[in-house]
Amino acid sequence: MSDPTPEPPVRPGSRGPYAKTAARRAAIVDAAREVFAASGYRAGSIQAVADACGISQSAVLHHFPAKEDLLLAVLADRDARGDDVQAGHDLFGGTLAQARHNESVPGIIELYTTLCGEATGAGHPAHDYFATRFRRTREHYADEFRSLAAAGRLREGVDPDLAGASLVALWDGAQLQWLMEPGAVNVTAQLRHFLSLCVLPA
Amino acid sequence: MSDPTPEPPVRPGSRGPYAKTAARRAAIVDAAREVFAASGYRAGSIQAVADACGISQSAVLHHFPAKEDLLLAVLADRDARGDDVQAGHDLFGGTLAQARHNESVPGIIELYTTLCGEATGAGHPAHDYFATRFRRTREHYADEFRSLAAAGRLREGVDPDLAGASLVALWDGAQLQWLMEPGAVNVTAQLRHFLSLCVLPA
Repeated sequence: MSDPTPEPPVRPGSRGPYAKTAARRAAIVDAAREVFAASGYRAGSIQAVADACGISQSAVLHHFPAKEDLLLAVLADRDARGDDVQAGHDLFGGTLAQARHNESVPGIIELYTTLCGEATGAGHPAHDYFATRFRRTREHYADEFRSLAAAGRLREGVDPDLAGASLVALWDGAQLQWLMEPGAVNVTAQLRHFLSLCVLPA
Repeated sequence: MSDPTPEPPVRPGSRGPYAKTAARRAAIVDAAREVFAASGYRAGSIQAVADACGISQSAVLHHFPAKEDLLLAVLADRDARGDDVQAGHDLFGGTLAQARHNESVPGIIELYTTLCGEATGAGHPAHDYFATRFRRTREHYADEFRSLAAAGRLREGVDPDLAGASLVALWDGAQLQWLMEPGAVNVTAQLRHFLSLCVLPA
């Protein structure tokens, strides 16, 4: 993922070579996101990314020596964009705010769903990224359910670890159905229903 | 999906041309399943399917004029194999029996997950197959929950339509996590937990 040609340090706001390189890299990552969302990672080609940027394939490879570097840059870029709108909310409010936000970015959800489906194979370059992300997310929600349990707010029979893993699973599966037939599936309603089966009213 | 050369009718058990054609078609579908499971549909090539069968690409195209026909044949073959082990069980027993069965066929689950992720785009040849399958499956489980409601067996607050869609979603999402990290995720336990939050003991 690193640029093979180290750039000299420059002042912030400079329009020098570093700013140009950063802008070029950002444009390539934007194009790669579109290509991978439309075709998947395996079938998406560096040539298609280059065409979308109006540059040569070797210009893409100057910044990202392998297609795998491009994929990891797209995923890191998504994480860095702060699509996370749950901060400052409780489990209910944060989950529903995030679900409503996700409805406004179907392209991102489709990219994530397509790459995730591809990456189930152990040899896929994004396999470890997704396995780690799932583990972290499961643990995050299990902790949320454990806090609710400590506050006496879980319904009888709710297991915090299973509920945490299931919230993540339900969310991904509902988004998959929503992408297939947007008008027939309400992701937010499914999440609210699940949470209300687990958590007592405040 | 039809063979361009109609075969003459033959007696069952015949080793004539029909049996040979059927065996050849079955071998091609088996090879296509492996190729699509390993590479996805978009990146899996007819050449790879031909190589796996030890025949030429034009021999594959004789039986399946387009790659799309091959994909639909793989999906129809899976449906025809009767992977459904839920018959004769109630919702609880059927779901758990199917979940345990699915654990024994990770290759099929991976194929399904990869193709499904790819097929979220409206232009994908399996999009309608999966959209229809999801609709049918949601309706099936919603009906199951409605029957339980009529028998007074649903817990307070459970909505049969949302519960049906959520059971399907949770199942797909849990299988996705299980494929990423088999040792860390228990699909059957997640399904049992969800059902026990919805359904009162008999």
